[in-house]
Amino acid sequence: MTKKFTILIHGGAGKISKDLSREEQQAYLEGLKASLISAYEAMVKNDNSLDSVSKAVVSLENNPLFNAGKGAVYTHNSTHELDASIMDGEGRCGAACSLKEVKNPILLARLIMEKSEHVFLGGKGAEEFAKLHKLEMVANSHFNTKKRLEQLAKALKMNKSVLDHEISEEEIKAMKSGTVGAVAINSKGELAAATSTGGMTNKRYGRIGDSPIIGAGTFANNNSCAISCTGVGEEFIRYSVAHDIHALMSYANYSLKEAVDNLLFEKLAKGDGGLIAIDKDYNFTMNFNSAGMLRGMINERGEGVVGIWEELERFQIRC
Amino acid sequence: MTKKFTILIHGGAGKISKDLSREEQQAYLEGLKASLISAYEAMVKNDNSLDSVSKAVVSLENNPLFNAGKGAVYTHNSTHELDASIMDGEGRCGAACSLKEVKNPILLARLIMEKSEHVFLGGKGAEEFAKLHKLEMVANSHFNTKKRLEQLAKALKMNKSVLDHEISEEEIKAMKSGTVGAVAINSKGELAAATSTGGMTNKRYGRIGDSPIIGAGTFANNNSCAISCTGVGEEFIRYSVAHDIHALMSYANYSLKEAVDNLLFEKLAKGDGGLIAIDKDYNFTMNFNSAGMLRGMINERGEGVVGIWEELERFQIRC
Repeated sequence: MTKKFTILIHGGAGKISKDLSREEQQAYLEGLKASLISAYEAMVKNDNSLDSVSKAVVSLENNPLFNAGKGAVYTHNSTHELDASIMDGEGRCGAACSLKEVKNPILLARLIMEKSEHVFLGGKGAEEFAKLHKLEMVANSHFNTKKRLEQLAKALKMNKSVLDHEISEEEIKAMKSGTVGAVAINSKGELAAATSTGGMTNKRYGRIGDSPIIGAGTFANNNSCAISCTGVGEEFIRYSVAHDIHALMSYANYSLKEAVDNLLFEKLAKGDGGLIAIDKDYNFTMNFNSAGMLRGMINERGEGVVGIWEELERFQIRC
Repeated sequence: MTKKFTILIHGGAGKISKDLSREEQQAYLEGLKASLISAYEAMVKNDNSLDSVSKAVVSLENNPLFNAGKGAVYTHNSTHELDASIMDGEGRCGAACSLKEVKNPILLARLIMEKSEHVFLGGKGAEEFAKLHKLEMVANSHFNTKKRLEQLAKALKMNKSVLDHEISEEEIKAMKSGTVGAVAINSKGELAAATSTGGMTNKRYGRIGDSPIIGAGTFANNNSCAISCTGVGEEFIRYSVAHDIHALMSYANYSLKEAVDNLLFEKLAKGDGGLIAIDKDYNFTMNFNSAGMLRGMINERGEGVVGIWEELERFQIRC
C-alpha cells in the first residue's frame, strides 16, 4: 500500500482573465498536472517532502507558461532576475535572489540549504556558488519568451496609464503577482515548502519580492504547517505572511483554515494574492483574495485536482 | 514639560573580548552615547520615532568602530557590501541589500519606504534608486579601515583554523555578528525600528543576513513592539525572530520580556546574539545570549545607560 502524503502546488495568483481561450486554460491545467505528477512520482519513490516540492517547482520553472525559470517576466531593462527559497519542517532553509543565469533557481535555494553555512545568497555571488557546485547555468536570454516580451511592452505603456488613472488598482496588483510554489507532507509528517519567481513585469531598481524571504513567501515547521505564497510581494513581506500563519496556529490555536483566512481576508487587501498551505495533520487549503490562482493538489491515492478560478477539475493518475 | 519617549540602540553582539583596553571600552561607550544623544535631540525636536531611529543609526554608521556604514567589515574579496532595513508601527517598511556605494544604508532603506512602491531593493538597482533621489554616494573604498582589514586577514587565516578545529564555535559565531540598530517610541505610542550592517567578515557568495529582512532582523507594530536584532543572521532568519516576538505578544499574551527570552533562550542557541525591544507600553529590554552586546537607552528625562557586558553605565544629559 502506498504511504500517505499530500502535495499542493500553485502557479501564481492575480487577475487571470476569464477571456482565456479554452486552449490557454487547458495549457495551464496541463502544466499544473505535469508538475503534480512529477512531484507525485518523487514522493512515491522517496517519501521525501523536500525532493517532492523541488520536483514540482522545477517542472513549473521549466514550463514557459509560468512566471519562474524559463517563463520569467522581463525587468524594466529587458533582462530577467529570478528569486527562490525552500524550507523544511525542521527549520533548514535556503534562499537566493537577483539571479540572472541559474536555470532552476529552486535548485540553487536547495543547494544553499544543504551545502552552505548560509541561508540567503544574492546576485553574482550566489551564481558563483551555483557554478562551484556545478548547477546548470544558462545565458540570461534563455528566459526570453515572446509572451513575456509583449507583457513588458504593455507594462511600459501602462506606466503612463497609471499616471492617467486609466488602469485599475487590481490590474496593477496583477502585474506584481506571479510565482510558483509547492508544499508537501510525507508519510512521516515531514513538511516542506518551496517558492520560485521571475518577479514582477517591468520591475526596476533591483526590486525583490517575498519569494526569497523565509517567513514571508515561504515557511515550514513540522509542528504547524508549510506555506508558499504568491501575490503582491510587498504586502506579503509587510505582514510576514507565511510565518504569521505558523504563529496563529502555534500561539492562538487557530486551525490552518482560520489562520489562512485571517491573513487573506483580515490583514491583506483584496487582490493581493493567495497561498497554498498544508498542516501537520494533512489538512490543506489553497485560497486567494485575487480573481484567481493557478493551483493543484495530489495525494497518495493519485487523486488530483487543478483549477484557475473557483471551480476545481478532478483527475486521477494510476498508482 | 518634555513629552514621554524611549530610545534604545545596539552596536552589535558577539564575543567582545574582556581584554579590551580601558580606552577601547570608552571609545565604544562614547560612540553609543553620541548616537543616543543625536536620537534624543531628534525626538525632542520632532516627537517622531522614525526620525529618531534614523538619526541613531546614521550616527553609528558614521562611526568607524561599528560594523555598519563607515566601519563595515570586509568581504572575502576585500570589498564591502552593506544591508539595512527600517519599519514603523503602522507597517510601512523599506529595506536594501548588497550596497557598495551608499554612504548611509539606513537612509536608503527609509527612502525606499517613503518614495518607492516597493519594500526591498538590492544591489546596483537599489543604488540607481539612491542616486535618482540624490542620496549621498561614496566609493566603496570609503568603507576601508585598517582595523577591519586586519580582521579580514585574521578571518582568512581562521578559515584554515576552522577546518583544523583550532577555533571555537563561539569565535565563529562572533565573526558572523555585528550590526547596529535602534528602536523608539514617541509620546503618541508610535513605534519604529531600524537595523544596518556591514555583514560578516570574509563573507562570500553574496551572503545576506537578517538585517535587511523585515520580520527577521527588524519589525515594528504599534499594537505590540519594535525590535532590532544583531547576531548570527542565518539563525535570526530561520526563526523570523523579530516577527516571532510580535506574534508571541499578540497571540500568546506573552510580555515583551517573556517573548524576548523565549527567542533568546529557548529557540536560538547560546552565542547567537541579542536584540533591543520596546513595547507599546514603554517597557523595554536589551538582552543577548552572546558574551556581550554594545547597547544603550535614553528617555525624555535625559537619563541614559550604555554597556557592553552585564553591567550598565548611567549618564545624564541636560534636557
